Order: sequence, then C-alpha cells, then structure tokens
Amino acid sequence: MAFPIPRRLLLVSNSRLHGEGYLAHCEEQMRSFFGGKVNRVLFIPYALHDQDAYAKTAREKFESLGYELDSIHESSDPVEAVRKSEAIFVGGGNTFRLLKILYDLNLIPEIRKRVLHAGIPYMGSSAGTNVATISISTTNDMPIVFPPSLEALGFVPFNINPHYLDPDVNSTHMGGLREGSMLLVEGNKATLLGRNKARLFLRGQTPTEHEPGADFSFLLTSS
Amino acid sequence: MAFPIPRRLLLVSNSRLHGEGYLAHCEEQMRSFFGGKVNRVLFIPYALHDQDAYAKTAREKFESLGYELDSIHESSDPVEAVRKSEAIFVGGGNTFRLLKILYDLNLIPEIRKRVLHAGIPYMGSSAGTNVATISISTTNDMPIVFPPSLEALGFVPFNINPHYLDPDVNSTHMGGLREGSMLLVEGNKATLLGRNKARLFLRGQTPTEHEPGADFSFLLTSS
Repeated sequence: MAFPIPRRLLLVSNSRLHGEGYLAHCEEQMRSFFGGKVNRVLFIPYALHDQDAYAKTAREKFESLGYELDSIHESSDPVEAVRKSEAIFVGGGNTFRLLKILYDLNLIPEIRKRVLHAGIPYMGSSAGTNVATISISTTNDMPIVFPPSLEALGFVPFNINPHYLDPDVNSTHMGGLREGSMLLVEGNKATLLGRNKARLFLRGQTPTEHEPGADFSFLLTSS
Repeated sequence: MAFPIPRRLLLVSNSRLHGEGYLAHCEEQMRSFFGGKVNRVLFIPYALHDQDAYAKTAREKFESLGYELDSIHESSDPVEAVRKSEAIFVGGGNTFRLLKILYDLNLIPEIRKRVLHAGIPYMGSSAGTNVATISISTTNDMPIVFPPSLEALGFVPFNINPHYLDPDVNSTHMGGLREGSMLLVEGNKATLLGRNKARLFLRGQTPTEHEPGADFSFLLTSS
C-alpha cells in the first residue's frame, strides 16, 4: 500500500495493566507519538456504554500529558469533529459495539481520510487497535451487537489480537499483542514497543516470538 | 412460547473434558436423551474446517452408544437430510462459521421445523449449543467469517455462554454453562445436568449460582 502521506499509528494492546493507572504503561510512548505539535486529541469512546465516564477518565490522562481532549460523543456533528481533528484516540471496550457505531455514524471514511490523507496520528487501545486493522476478525469480544461488516479501518494489512493469551487462534495471518505491548507505525516502518514479546502468525508457518524493538515493517506490504 | 409438540434439547457446554474422550462426560445423558426409538442421528459438523475427520470422531462415539450417524456434509441435499432426520447433533468449533453455513445452506428454517414441529431431539455441544439459543451474542469465538445475522435457531428464549469461565460478561440476560455442564429441555421443563454449577445472569439482578439438577423451566417463558 502506498500512502501519499506517512500514516502514523500507535496501536496498544490494552488500556490498563494490572495494578497500574489508565494508560500508565504507555505514557512515554504517547508523549513521543503525539509530540509537541498536537494540542487537542479527539477521543472516540463508543466501545463503552458509559461514554461520559469514559471521556472523563481519558481527559484526565491526556491533560496530565499536556493535551486537551474532546470526546466525539459530546459533539453535535461527529463527522465534522473528525474532519477538524488533529489527532485521534480510540479507546477500548466492546469491539462490535465500537465498529457498529463507527459505521452507523458514517465515520469510517472520515477517519480514513484524516489518518491516510491528512496524516494525523491515530492511537488505539484494545478495541481501538482492532478497528485500525483490516478487520475485527481476531477480537476476543462477544458480538453483543451486529455491525454491517467485520471490515475495519484497514490502516495495516493484517489482523491484531489485543490481550493476546491463547495459542489456539483461528486466523492464519495476524499478530498477537500481549498486554503491555504496542505497535508503532510511522509510514512504512512498524516497530514493536512495550514490555512484552508479541507472537506473529503467518499462513502456513510456525508462529514466531518477537522482542520489543522488533522491526515489523515487512508486515506493511500487502500480502 | 407455546410449541405444538414439546421441544427436546440437550445443550452441552463442551465436547471434551480435559483428559477424557470425545463426549465421554455426557454419555449417560445422551443415552437417556436419544433413548431407544432413535436409530440414526444427523450430525452437523460445519463448525469445524475438517468435516471428514470430525464426522469420523462423532460416528465412532455415536456407534459405540448404538446409534448410526449420518454427517450432513456427506449429503448431496442438506435440506432434504434435515427433513428426513430423526435426531440432530450439532458439534462444536467456531460459532460464526457454523451459523454462516446454516444460513448459506438455508438450513435454519428446516432445523426449526424438525425440532419445533416434528419434535425430534436436538443435541448441541459448544457452538451447537450457542446456535440453539436466540442468538450467538454470547459466544467466545472469534468472528472469522460474517454470517448474515447473529440470530440463531431460537429454541430457548435466552443466551448461553458455553465454556463459561469469566465473570466479566456483557450480556444482561444469559446463562453461563461451565465445562462439564449441560441443559436438558423437554417441552416446558428445563433442567441443569452434569458435574458443575451454572451461573445465571438476569438483567438488573446479581448473578446466581445453580447446582446440577436445578429447575430452569422459568427461563423458558419469554421475557
């Protein structure tokens, strides 16, 4: 895939490590990812039911890092909120609920435009990481609602299974991000970050383990 | 729901307990459920990829209990196979794959007719238990394919989560069947069988634990 402007993605496995605060385990990576130019981050809380409470938690965290946070659910025009956004953070929760609302509100093409054509940074955690990939086919969540498709934002040409635990996966081309892990994508370069190794599944091959710092850029070329 | 003929269901959480043979943990309940009148059982192996191997495993088990087994995937006319069936067993695997094939082959209305109007016994295990309920919204499986709907056979007006492990469920009206558990439905009577307790979730209520032998008939009246 050739993008006119380098895509910038920070795809985190999970929002909270046991015994730590919200997004505490990826604070350093967030600072470096959003950097000094971003002032306001648009938060997408649709994966959870209580969006007010979720926005409050996310706002406190982002403000502590020096960024203003607008939650899209507080906007009267979500499409316009995406069009004006300078950075996006999609939080975790139920992946089916998240994807369905993104479709229902017609936000999929708008988020794609901002990330792939305007080049704004996209951070996802858990469900927000799932929807950044080609499809949500490797979510562990229950299908509590029925989205019109499993196809997602497609910022990377593979699947990710956040909260990766179990070796018995059904997909033939995906990666498993253990809790505490994240994937940083800058244009055509992909790097594993965080504290834990990740497990890579390729069709017809034995799964392989990769240390933090591993270069996953080869996964960004379409198969 | 009023059925003209009593429905007969044996809904098993899982096909194999750790260290035991295929369907060994529910052998006694299968004998008593299918009884002496059933000669041939129609097996539906669509939840797994290797249907030949799956049918072989199931056939060996059913033959050891004195029943012939026909696998629907060996039939040139699956709809006709259901129409002629005197008992059905739907095996486990991936619930999304199973439900999609049932829709693709137009088997949903045919299985409903056999079970609800002709009153033939329906046994499900894992994915086969999920598809017997109102919807597959409480499956733990990954959505590796996209069925046209989450709506399932609807033989009981609630959801079941087979392989129940985790208290953090999203549904508000469901039951959790731990491995080794099963639910027997005979007309308007529902009974918990097997070795383990089950956990019942009702909207707005604290979940409750129920011992094997518990009468769950009250769940069969539509909410």
